[in-house]
Amino acid sequence: MNVKSVLTAGISALSIMATSSCSQYGGQAPVTPDNTAGIVVENIMTRTSIRQFTGQPVGKDTLETLVKAGMAAPTAVNAQPWAFVVVTDRAVLDSLDAVHPYSHLKKAGAAIVVCGDMEKALEGDNRAYWIQDCSAATENILLAAHAYGLGAVWCGVYPNPERIPGVKQVLGLPDSIIPLNIVTIGHPENPDHQPKDKWDPERVRFNHW
Amino acid sequence: MNVKSVLTAGISALSIMATSSCSQYGGQAPVTPDNTAGIVVENIMTRTSIRQFTGQPVGKDTLETLVKAGMAAPTAVNAQPWAFVVVTDRAVLDSLDAVHPYSHLKKAGAAIVVCGDMEKALEGDNRAYWIQDCSAATENILLAAHAYGLGAVWCGVYPNPERIPGVKQVLGLPDSIIPLNIVTIGHPENPDHQPKDKWDPERVRFNHW
Repeated sequence: MNVKSVLTAGISALSIMATSSCSQYGGQAPVTPDNTAGIVVENIMTRTSIRQFTGQPVGKDTLETLVKAGMAAPTAVNAQPWAFVVVTDRAVLDSLDAVHPYSHLKKAGAAIVVCGDMEKALEGDNRAYWIQDCSAATENILLAAHAYGLGAVWCGVYPNPERIPGVKQVLGLPDSIIPLNIVTIGHPENPDHQPKDKWDPERVRFNHW
Repeated sequence: MNVKSVLTAGISALSIMATSSCSQYGGQAPVTPDNTAGIVVENIMTRTSIRQFTGQPVGKDTLETLVKAGMAAPTAVNAQPWAFVVVTDRAVLDSLDAVHPYSHLKKAGAAIVVCGDMEKALEGDNRAYWIQDCSAATENILLAAHAYGLGAVWCGVYPNPERIPGVKQVLGLPDSIIPLNIVTIGHPENPDHQPKDKWDPERVRFNHW
């Protein structure tokens, strides 16, 4: 067995190990060491909302990376109309939990509250693009959290009129800052939580309705 | 040099190659064969809007995987209020280009028009969550396209009143289907197009505004 064949065998073994977890999306993109597409798509397909946590904290470096991932999202006319409140203080997490009935924060390690900044949002008809921009940022945060083995869940705030004032009050947000959601983050109680298979070919049309 | 040391050397080489492209986000998550987080975060950080394409087509299997990635996004109350129109027909791409001034479709290989389905959207105050759900789906599509080495750009349609009717007419969308955007996809003319660095620590607060 020469050097090349040993390396080939090793890479094949890694490839087989990785490919075996691809069933969720029909094996379109096998995971191999030279195919990062498979790893990325696998991460997208296996992400699922996690609502039960161990209570362990989440590292500050990791939270910073998650916010950086959020800020890498595209925004209409590059307005970047966002702000992020990272919450790790137990008292603040509990206060947020008290004003949002489905925030699942009691045993979470952290939260990132994704907000729209109306001083940076576009004008006129285009103003509402902040919602889309901040939603893209939120999805980036969820995907990065999943990649780190963390669990997370997107807990909607805007446009629910019963949730916005409480979240604003707890965090002391100025008038120009609107909380879109609370991304609740933590170490999952069940690390093997399975994603829903939401693929439905009937939702796809080709070239025309 | 025994089998183990050859394998170790090979994996280290892969690791070094991968780590060298981490500078964009400050090296928080080094890419190693046993650290998919680095690959996922790197993909998020290096994605950027691509508007110039070679004109080559995009494979149908890849487009299907991109739509599957879209449908893996979370949705409020799991409503999945979406529909996806995959466009590869040159005449339809040209017709879309004619009704959307910034769709960059002339030399694109394909488009995925991400739509909200009002028959599946929630009721009352929660109806508007379809925008957030479909935005998360769009971000998944953009990230998967980038992972495959494709270029893509999110071309906003909703809520722009000058763009919605034209896109609906070209695709024959029923009243209940609202086009949120056109995701223009293709092989990038410049594969080394660099992402913007949008990280801004001033947009982050900790525990309170």
